[in-house]
Amino acid sequence: MTYSTQMDAARKGIITKEMEIAAKKEGIKAEDLRAQIAAGTAIIPCNKHHKSIDPNAIGSKLKTKINVNLGTSRDWSDIDMEYGKVQSAVDMGAEAIMDLSTFGDTEKFRMKLTSECPAMIGTVPIYDAVVYYHKPLKEITSEEWLAVARMHAEQGVDFMTIHCGINIETARRFKRNKRRMNIVSRGGSIIYAWMEMTGNENPFFEHFDELLDICEEHDVTLSLGDACRPGCLDDATDSVQIGELSTLGELTLRAWKRNVQVMIEGPGHMPLNQIAANMEVEKTLCHGAPFYVLGPLVTDIAPGYDHITAAIGGAIAAASGAAFLCYVTPAEHLRLPDVNDVKEGIIASKIAAHAADIAKGLPGAMDQDNKMADARRRLDWEEIYRCSIDSEKARRYHEEAAPEKEDTCSMCGNFCAVKNMNKILDGEIVSIFDE
Amino acid sequence: MTYSTQMDAARKGIITKEMEIAAKKEGIKAEDLRAQIAAGTAIIPCNKHHKSIDPNAIGSKLKTKINVNLGTSRDWSDIDMEYGKVQSAVDMGAEAIMDLSTFGDTEKFRMKLTSECPAMIGTVPIYDAVVYYHKPLKEITSEEWLAVARMHAEQGVDFMTIHCGINIETARRFKRNKRRMNIVSRGGSIIYAWMEMTGNENPFFEHFDELLDICEEHDVTLSLGDACRPGCLDDATDSVQIGELSTLGELTLRAWKRNVQVMIEGPGHMPLNQIAANMEVEKTLCHGAPFYVLGPLVTDIAPGYDHITAAIGGAIAAASGAAFLCYVTPAEHLRLPDVNDVKEGIIASKIAAHAADIAKGLPGAMDQDNKMADARRRLDWEEIYRCSIDSEKARRYHEEAAPEKEDTCSMCGNFCAVKNMNKILDGEIVSIFDE
Repeated sequence: MTYSTQMDAARKGIITKEMEIAAKKEGIKAEDLRAQIAAGTAIIPCNKHHKSIDPNAIGSKLKTKINVNLGTSRDWSDIDMEYGKVQSAVDMGAEAIMDLSTFGDTEKFRMKLTSECPAMIGTVPIYDAVVYYHKPLKEITSEEWLAVARMHAEQGVDFMTIHCGINIETARRFKRNKRRMNIVSRGGSIIYAWMEMTGNENPFFEHFDELLDICEEHDVTLSLGDACRPGCLDDATDSVQIGELSTLGELTLRAWKRNVQVMIEGPGHMPLNQIAANMEVEKTLCHGAPFYVLGPLVTDIAPGYDHITAAIGGAIAAASGAAFLCYVTPAEHLRLPDVNDVKEGIIASKIAAHAADIAKGLPGAMDQDNKMADARRRLDWEEIYRCSIDSEKARRYHEEAAPEKEDTCSMCGNFCAVKNMNKILDGEIVSIFDE
Repeated sequence: MTYSTQMDAARKGIITKEMEIAAKKEGIKAEDLRAQIAAGTAIIPCNKHHKSIDPNAIGSKLKTKINVNLGTSRDWSDIDMEYGKVQSAVDMGAEAIMDLSTFGDTEKFRMKLTSECPAMIGTVPIYDAVVYYHKPLKEITSEEWLAVARMHAEQGVDFMTIHCGINIETARRFKRNKRRMNIVSRGGSIIYAWMEMTGNENPFFEHFDELLDICEEHDVTLSLGDACRPGCLDDATDSVQIGELSTLGELTLRAWKRNVQVMIEGPGHMPLNQIAANMEVEKTLCHGAPFYVLGPLVTDIAPGYDHITAAIGGAIAAASGAAFLCYVTPAEHLRLPDVNDVKEGIIASKIAAHAADIAKGLPGAMDQDNKMADARRRLDWEEIYRCSIDSEKARRYHEEAAPEKEDTCSMCGNFCAVKNMNKILDGEIVSIFDE
């Protein structure tokens, strides 16, 4: 029996090899995953032409996945150097790489990703169209916008962010409702400006069926972009954001009719107390399609530390139903991230994802934490390093301040509660200063 | 009219000058704060002998406060250098300093703090007793334990962590209920070992009335220590932790009868989904006394990044009712923090506290975020730096990767959504590559 997309296969009762691989990683039955994919609540972004992929599934009942944004830019245009960052991101546990290249030979870099990289690859064709056509924005035609999406699909991209929701209706709603930060989505602002300058409808909304043809043919997952995501706390959960989300929900149903896999992009900047509610609203308005969030950042005042503000928001979001976290680095809002920022961003996102998986009660989610606790009780430092999310840093921190006693650390020294409890429970004398 | 403690004053209807100062900082009426202090739901730790204090109130309806642990140790015993760290912690916004000194002339450092420092000062007399008597642990007498607490009170300490809850009953419960990490509280493990070795009841529990005499006389706030706080996720919210919390609640009522101010210390390590429930349970078992949490850390596997795991847990805890956050640095579990770790820890805690204050809907909590959003919309970088929690880092990050255009940053360059939206809303042409 043949199938077009993973969703088509799932609906026909077929368990694909991608479902088998992804289900095994989750520790669930392939049949369970198939049912989630058939229902649209899980996806396996996996373009037929991306042969090097090691597939992963994304869904609120599965392990939380993380995405890392990379790509060539005016400042960093060396393809091999950028690919090195991709490899280290994958080594650190990123399940997805979004290639946001905006400079140089973007096609060459993209092709390298879809022929060599095991992570799922996402792109934003709108950015690439601006680079590709290299002409005044308003002169790009609807056909040309679509053509770049087709090219990405043919080149093996697993998921594409397409800002279909910022249509004329959404633009009108935006104009009626004043926002402090307007539109902060790059792709969203480009489409909005193009619509304003040309007077035309959003090409991806107007020609949504053609976009679905492309996605169905190559099995590209649509990542429905939120042009109107809040860019500051004060704009969060306003009628512009929720109105656009509602439109994305309608488009989700149209995509599902064509067996096209869908995820929904989400906030953004948001007060902590609104996060759980937003996850619920997405679930109803978008019919359970996986939610892919950028943050949310729980305060606006911490540039330089937005990996932390995003980890707070991301952990709560994922524990409340978000399936996929876009990493945020300390450089967010300030400059392109360097190699160290990328690492800090990935680790903060992995912490948020892991904390959420434990909170969701996923089987085995706490195994590594329990191993760590056992190692700590035994003061087995080598095992502590092995259980650490960053073994090198744990070892360096512990070893560079030599502990007074080999089995403790310099934080407590002889006051170490773990050591003293082990002693007293073994019936030994505990003292602190008379040893 | 005279009064013994702030609570005694509040109950007599007196608005003290400390209440006036603290209420002004909260933007609330002094009478409102007085009522909270009378009810025990807010405290102003403020020893009568601490003349240099700039008082602050702690309570779940007030701004979330943070504490920074410092103190001399075998590795860092220079009093002036350690006091330098105290000053920079206060400059960065710490409302409290806990002096956990375990080496050298602890009295001299403590006296310097209570005669010069504007932050509230906390200590753990148990640690100091071990240093002070310098003899085998089991030879320290009940009277001697109490004498050190009296000395700290006389020397102007504003709040003392006293592990009164780890009594014989709690110790029996601990023995019946196996835990992965046993007891990880330093003070708790010392008292437990002392009880096991001497066969005596916990001196602070047995002589609780004498402790109250001391606290009432000098207006020392009791910070009831949780010896049995979970030391790993797997031990969280177990009967040992909750049983001890229940005992602390009983002691709270006894303290309040004597007009002694009380806060309760809390976890620790805890899965994210248990945090809000723990805040509620504390509120009922401890009758609304302010909750002072260490973390909670939402995973055990991130040594080197526990300022992040604690910021996630702390933000949720404070948004759910915790009033006071103890900072956690990247060095937690590994070694004593250095100056940079202290800074990272303070900033992460301030982010968590601020995010929680916004979530609680405190009046004006979002003012700085709104200013930041306005500055970002205008691409006013000097104002962005001014609104940043760490102006120096924000400036350095932005300026060290020179933006292609002066008014954007190197993250998006010409793709900057903010710039392009400002243009199109002003009726200007937006393009990306043809300028």
